[in-house]
Amino acid sequence: MNGLLTDLYELTMAAGYFETGRSAQWATFELSIRRLPRNRDYVLLAGLEQALEYLLNLRFTGPEIDYLRTLPQFSLVSAAFFEHLRDFRFTGDVFAAPEGTMLFAGEPVMTVRAPLMEAQIPETYLLSTLTFQTLIATKAARMVRQAAGRDVVEFGTRRAHTPQAGVLGARAAYIGGCSATSNTQTGFRFGIPVVGTAGHSWVMSYLTEQEAFQKLQQVLGVNTVQLVDTYDSIEGTRRVASLGPPLWGIRLDSGDLVALSRQARAILDSAGLHATKIMASGDLDETKIGDLIASGAPIDSFGVGTELATSGDAPSMGAIYKLVEVEGRYTAKHSENKASLPGPKQLFRFPDRDVVALASEPVPPGATAVLEPVILKGALAAASPDLPSIRRAAAKSLRTVGPRPVDYSDALKTLMTQV
Amino acid sequence: MNGLLTDLYELTMAAGYFETGRSAQWATFELSIRRLPRNRDYVLLAGLEQALEYLLNLRFTGPEIDYLRTLPQFSLVSAAFFEHLRDFRFTGDVFAAPEGTMLFAGEPVMTVRAPLMEAQIPETYLLSTLTFQTLIATKAARMVRQAAGRDVVEFGTRRAHTPQAGVLGARAAYIGGCSATSNTQTGFRFGIPVVGTAGHSWVMSYLTEQEAFQKLQQVLGVNTVQLVDTYDSIEGTRRVASLGPPLWGIRLDSGDLVALSRQARAILDSAGLHATKIMASGDLDETKIGDLIASGAPIDSFGVGTELATSGDAPSMGAIYKLVEVEGRYTAKHSENKASLPGPKQLFRFPDRDVVALASEPVPPGATAVLEPVILKGALAAASPDLPSIRRAAAKSLRTVGPRPVDYSDALKTLMTQV
Repeated sequence: MNGLLTDLYELTMAAGYFETGRSAQWATFELSIRRLPRNRDYVLLAGLEQALEYLLNLRFTGPEIDYLRTLPQFSLVSAAFFEHLRDFRFTGDVFAAPEGTMLFAGEPVMTVRAPLMEAQIPETYLLSTLTFQTLIATKAARMVRQAAGRDVVEFGTRRAHTPQAGVLGARAAYIGGCSATSNTQTGFRFGIPVVGTAGHSWVMSYLTEQEAFQKLQQVLGVNTVQLVDTYDSIEGTRRVASLGPPLWGIRLDSGDLVALSRQARAILDSAGLHATKIMASGDLDETKIGDLIASGAPIDSFGVGTELATSGDAPSMGAIYKLVEVEGRYTAKHSENKASLPGPKQLFRFPDRDVVALASEPVPPGATAVLEPVILKGALAAASPDLPSIRRAAAKSLRTVGPRPVDYSDALKTLMTQV
Repeated sequence: MNGLLTDLYELTMAAGYFETGRSAQWATFELSIRRLPRNRDYVLLAGLEQALEYLLNLRFTGPEIDYLRTLPQFSLVSAAFFEHLRDFRFTGDVFAAPEGTMLFAGEPVMTVRAPLMEAQIPETYLLSTLTFQTLIATKAARMVRQAAGRDVVEFGTRRAHTPQAGVLGARAAYIGGCSATSNTQTGFRFGIPVVGTAGHSWVMSYLTEQEAFQKLQQVLGVNTVQLVDTYDSIEGTRRVASLGPPLWGIRLDSGDLVALSRQARAILDSAGLHATKIMASGDLDETKIGDLIASGAPIDSFGVGTELATSGDAPSMGAIYKLVEVEGRYTAKHSENKASLPGPKQLFRFPDRDVVALASEPVPPGATAVLEPVILKGALAAASPDLPSIRRAAAKSLRTVGPRPVDYSDALKTLMTQV
């Protein structure tokens, strides 16, 4: 189960460790942030729950093993390796920063300590699942900040990189501060508030916009959000105003959102619909949201899709997963501009700075240790926190952890010169 | 099964159609390309097989339906709707361009003709699965073109937006012309060639690079690719040269790839290793590949990751899914800069131009009709082609379909003025 959901080289290395009698040597790998994504001065960690689920359930099925046997890369590998894969499970320890933690360039995110083969195979999956959700949570946080207290709702599944990415992206967006998602499966699986009413096809399916609006109110009552721009946003808003309650509000999805929201607000107010809200959507990002807020546009809620679901201006981040220790020997990589630091590490967070230290160092006064045990001897160290708790932790982290220098401890510096 | 993997508004609209007695009215939705992705003058369609699998298997489970009942948006909806969901399946017809087809802005990709409710619900999933794979196939095609006959291998799962996106992205990259992938599950599921040997951790896990290289050859034989940049690329290459065969080649993953590949080639040649190949990797995109080729760097194969797996410079595309007809009445949307065209359509491809026409028009002499029946009455119209066939069709499309004007037929223009 998911055993093959990794780069082939993880499996050829696993075979190599096994064939040369080293697969049971204990090693530590570290997942860390080499570079922040473009346009970012921090990231907000998300995706840990899925990373842990993967480690706890990592198995190889019979057909998967049979497939590996057919590959030329395994032609010299002994039958004993494939037998070993049948019983494979992750038995190691994992330390990680909690979801919702703000992190900076150069900082460790997770350490995986296990027999060499068990720690090697998860590299690909862990990098993908942690960096993707981290990108989306971070993008959401930037949008929520610009919205200055107005709701930001995640609408982006149709632009996500597979529908499955839509589900987990919506989870991450909620951690980043979005108040709800349009993704129904995310609501079902994670208990996140879901929203949605009707699209243009609803309006077009009726002979008149008037009838479409009436029928929607009949079905959705106070949850009705009328999408007013199918033909003309102002005409549509007038129709909404003349129909009156029940409804939650209207949605503007095209055109000049500043001008349209002002006109719509005036139309609604003059009909006495002061409580009727205005949602805006349509290719919004944090810059456009900030501009709308700065302009004083009377928008109560923002629906964001494409830019959030793909982290459009920064769709990747430079996280790495490197061997830092094997059988007590510290290791590092010296590649040009791509060096890695030796030894299992801890991140000490002070109010005004972070210190990357060796895991063996005591926590200094005034600091907290960011990496916590999450899996011990192959079992969960503690139940994963629920999403509202993670979302609150993220909000606190965003509020209290400012930009900061990231230093190395003296012990780490000494080790770096030695290795 | 996957019933909730959609935006909530598709389901509230479905409830609305049902409650107002319209869910069984036949309608046609069209998925089309409103705007090409940034930096693109065409796209290469991919993802159709997964889209069809979804439609054929779309169901709602008991727990999914129970969840919907708890949502405030469904509080006014009758029990009959939820009963109806239990038996829901897609019974309509689908016409689509084959995977591997080059397409341009304004062109239809797929039409879905079904009872209103059945055609509405799939919007979100279809958009996501088709646009994602299309983005990756297109990005791959751009890289392969720049590689001018050298192999391009897909390495990007660790940067994909979820590990699942890595699997389908690798499928799309193969359609776009990549020769292989590092994603083992993609190889298993789709029969695509997989490659992979060892990463830096393999080298670091040994006391000396010499021993790491020897052991890898022992395990992988002629499939060995030595990653030489863990400590120093030139020293590493000298070690490979002194060890000699068996091996496939070396991989350079950092530094000045032009200078390093020349030095490495000279070292290998002077050791008589003329058949030993050089692979280059490390944040490559089509521009860098083109520059390397133009410089005459002796690189035999390119490994590409981040930029390919995320379509980094263009991580989204403006595809839309719009109602074009209901019960014989043609529909269109007039929103500012976001208008849609009425009526079920066909795409006629001439050697030098494309014409978007009504589906009812006869195929003009000299043209081929691009959209083909793929699902009829809820069942596959024909088996999906295998991936090598799709890849060949893509290569032919890339070779023969140049940039071209996209016109509307006279009948479509007439209809546009009428609606």
